[in-house]
Amino acid sequence: MIGWRDFCIAFVMPLCITAYIVNPGPVVKATKGQVWPIPEKQDTTTNFLIINPTHFEFQTNVPQCSLLTNALNRYWNIINNHGVGNVRQSQYNEREITEIDGYSGKLSSIKVYLKTNCTGDEVPSDTMDESYEIDLMGVPSTLIAPTIWGAIRGLETISQLIYYAEDGSTLILNTTKISDKPRFPFRGLLVDTSRHFIPKDILLKNLDAMAYNKLNVFHWHLTDDHSFPYQSIKFPELSQYGAYHPSALIYTQQDVKDIIEYARQRGIRVMTEFDTPGHTRSWGEGVSDILTPCYENNAPTGMYGPLDPSADNVYTFIKEFFEEIISVFPENYVHLGGDEVGFECWESNPKITQFMKDNNMVSYVALESYYIQKLLDIVHDLGGKSLVWEEVFVNGVELPNKTIVHVWKGDGYTVLKKAIAAGKPALLSSCWYLDYLKTGGDWDKFYECDPHNVNATEEELELILGGEACMWSESVNKYNFMSRVWPRASAAAEKLWSRKDAATYSEAAQRLEEHTCRMNARGIEAQPPNGPGYCL
Amino acid sequence: MIGWRDFCIAFVMPLCITAYIVNPGPVVKATKGQVWPIPEKQDTTTNFLIINPTHFEFQTNVPQCSLLTNALNRYWNIINNHGVGNVRQSQYNEREITEIDGYSGKLSSIKVYLKTNCTGDEVPSDTMDESYEIDLMGVPSTLIAPTIWGAIRGLETISQLIYYAEDGSTLILNTTKISDKPRFPFRGLLVDTSRHFIPKDILLKNLDAMAYNKLNVFHWHLTDDHSFPYQSIKFPELSQYGAYHPSALIYTQQDVKDIIEYARQRGIRVMTEFDTPGHTRSWGEGVSDILTPCYENNAPTGMYGPLDPSADNVYTFIKEFFEEIISVFPENYVHLGGDEVGFECWESNPKITQFMKDNNMVSYVALESYYIQKLLDIVHDLGGKSLVWEEVFVNGVELPNKTIVHVWKGDGYTVLKKAIAAGKPALLSSCWYLDYLKTGGDWDKFYECDPHNVNATEEELELILGGEACMWSESVNKYNFMSRVWPRASAAAEKLWSRKDAATYSEAAQRLEEHTCRMNARGIEAQPPNGPGYCL
Repeated sequence: MIGWRDFCIAFVMPLCITAYIVNPGPVVKATKGQVWPIPEKQDTTTNFLIINPTHFEFQTNVPQCSLLTNALNRYWNIINNHGVGNVRQSQYNEREITEIDGYSGKLSSIKVYLKTNCTGDEVPSDTMDESYEIDLMGVPSTLIAPTIWGAIRGLETISQLIYYAEDGSTLILNTTKISDKPRFPFRGLLVDTSRHFIPKDILLKNLDAMAYNKLNVFHWHLTDDHSFPYQSIKFPELSQYGAYHPSALIYTQQDVKDIIEYARQRGIRVMTEFDTPGHTRSWGEGVSDILTPCYENNAPTGMYGPLDPSADNVYTFIKEFFEEIISVFPENYVHLGGDEVGFECWESNPKITQFMKDNNMVSYVALESYYIQKLLDIVHDLGGKSLVWEEVFVNGVELPNKTIVHVWKGDGYTVLKKAIAAGKPALLSSCWYLDYLKTGGDWDKFYECDPHNVNATEEELELILGGEACMWSESVNKYNFMSRVWPRASAAAEKLWSRKDAATYSEAAQRLEEHTCRMNARGIEAQPPNGPGYCL
Repeated sequence: MIGWRDFCIAFVMPLCITAYIVNPGPVVKATKGQVWPIPEKQDTTTNFLIINPTHFEFQTNVPQCSLLTNALNRYWNIINNHGVGNVRQSQYNEREITEIDGYSGKLSSIKVYLKTNCTGDEVPSDTMDESYEIDLMGVPSTLIAPTIWGAIRGLETISQLIYYAEDGSTLILNTTKISDKPRFPFRGLLVDTSRHFIPKDILLKNLDAMAYNKLNVFHWHLTDDHSFPYQSIKFPELSQYGAYHPSALIYTQQDVKDIIEYARQRGIRVMTEFDTPGHTRSWGEGVSDILTPCYENNAPTGMYGPLDPSADNVYTFIKEFFEEIISVFPENYVHLGGDEVGFECWESNPKITQFMKDNNMVSYVALESYYIQKLLDIVHDLGGKSLVWEEVFVNGVELPNKTIVHVWKGDGYTVLKKAIAAGKPALLSSCWYLDYLKTGGDWDKFYECDPHNVNATEEELELILGGEACMWSESVNKYNFMSRVWPRASAAAEKLWSRKDAATYSEAAQRLEEHTCRMNARGIEAQPPNGPGYCL
């Protein structure tokens, strides 16, 4: 069996003192009523308030704002249906909670104030204000936020402060003041729906989990070589022939609308990626003459490479396609990919060779840059803002202002530094690849990563917008998706929200134990973060 | 993102030809109607029969045998409810199936003959005969088996031969003759229900999955340091105080009965392990004075070590406890553990030191052996047969005839060879630790393992009874248990059933792609085996 010594080394070394001599029960004891990710400023006392869900309500100054009333309903349900707090205790006691030292009354309402108006039609964006302040010291208790987005984040925090008292059934919270805002404006989770199709209901549940972790960008890597599951309005043949299945394994326009709206309700942006010119093999199933035919001995092999940068029809197609994407998705930014372009096929193709000669191109990097430059111009002419994978920047393509460089290779810090030194906004993902596995668990490794682990000026650091955890789906399907993402992505979520070094690993381990049980209680199939343990 | 080059290296190297130039669709194409694990002898033609589930029945010569009629019902349901064959095709055609070359008629019944009587009360054991013969060449089609257990295995095989024709909706099977039996009599899966509690419904579903892979021993590692979820009749305090929760996270006697019966219906033995003298920390919560108190500076530290071999009451307790276990579980064999005994606590304890002096024991290995010897005697006096982890054999404890040595450390082959050379029956698990993870997938590694990879005489090889895949549960809870076990344990299942080198890795990959989809279709939450792909 897994030796305790091995287990300690692989997994929870800081928590192991003497090999083989262990205590019964969970290896990491969960906290109670502590918040993930940790707020910027929090004062909590040992005094506590009781919440009786059936005699508890939220009040607000903007009752007309459906975004807020929907959020209040969600969190009232979470509180009322035991989706809060820590695991219930196994040892019950008969003491009346109200006779315990520190009892400070019953909390029957929290007033939620927005400082600006809210119509309910707001759309989350890169400039949204997610700050909020909570005063839960007694009556009246308040949540105050400049915008609806901060209010939504604050409600999540309130729901996490509530936990079961020792009697195992009474909900309480310690009197608390919090002033909170995110360290980074861009806190994303990439989901690849091409290598395996991830059904809509799982994507929706995943948006819930993102909200429970205060992540705010769903980076939807919709297509790739293996399948094209997006049902386009203008080019339905893309999914008709490029999806794994033309009806069972696609996202219809209604699916896309539902996902965008579900995300909007939770203050989450839905940013799509249509990765070109590589990673497009499935595109060629529905639309002919856009991929580069590969050659051997002066004859096509039947294999295809990246988009053909020498073909005018490619740019016509790209323009029409992104016109649709920009109109379907309210998000301002679209991820244009640009990673891992293989040159083998271009090299083999006589038409490409001739095109390069005609245009005095001396390298395939130049050819790639030629394509990307045209792509960027097209998308920006359509009014879209863009992100690109780091290769595009490294290859020296001239990027429009504000195009974001998405760093994913190696440890990330070197290219991250180069990008911000060149005045480019940047995101870090290198250290948060959820498809990388390690025996025993690896959130500790994810928790060591920090986008601010670079030597840079204040001005440069401002250009680091945040980062993304990435769930590439080669080895995940609908059955293991949620448990592989959660709570591992929670580590990235805290690093992106909370101030640098806000918590030590061993403190975070206890809090993550609670947070995992909390997610489980809310229907998120998170796996164990810390070894032996349980949730009720 | 995960580079295709990296992915090839980490994952499916034999399947990658040129980096970046990939085909759309699944990276490994699934077979159709092929059997996992591969039968000993199989002749299949390109002719095919149609099965219309609503006009199909099993017939049998032992209609009074409830084990068989239950199995026939299960498999009829599987066939009728699309739990068979390959993924449905995305491209439909209108051709009449009966006009295709090779059409050989409709299969309206299969006759299932047992060569021996069956009352329905049979219990699977280490000596059961699982062989069977199938003749599906036309009418009449037959499954003939010496015993009910072979019939159950044969029904599984038949269900796997059936697949969807090109029209995506007609069930067909190629005309086939099979003569099959397992290479090893002991083909197990260990499930640790102590580090995390795995609910009964998941254990039952896991038994289904075991049957779909022809595994025949559920090794139930019921207790360990962290929790004691077995609700004992004689010692209810063990789970009352030693379980993670005294009612929500235990297995009642009824649960145990249900699990044993569910397994029996599928020809699966339920072999328990109550690991002593180490891995018993949770036992001490309910029963006092059985663990060794650890000392520091001549005073107890409050920590506890293994069972106290110097205490008479330990043996009284052990005798009473195993008396219950042997009466509750019909299985002849009980796994007695004996692994990873830490000596720190014994070394520190003055009573132990005195006891060793009084009994002229010069090493802690001798003390451990003293305990194990008494334990073995107790269990064998009670009529139980035993397995022990390899340490017991390596430490030189005199093992009763037929006590099985369970090899789990290192690569396993060295100790396996030593055990059989010493005339001891043995099992291999070292190479099938499902808690060990690797990016991308690792069934290839599990598929390289083979208990017959040792230099030994025929007589010695006879002593290798088989092996077990092990799901230690430090990092699995009810949410990721099934997807972590399946289809990774399928690799071990094939190595244990099929003849040595029955299939190459790349052939097996295609068959495992189908088998995974088949398990998914039957409700088993198996994860992807081979990278990008899909099931319908």
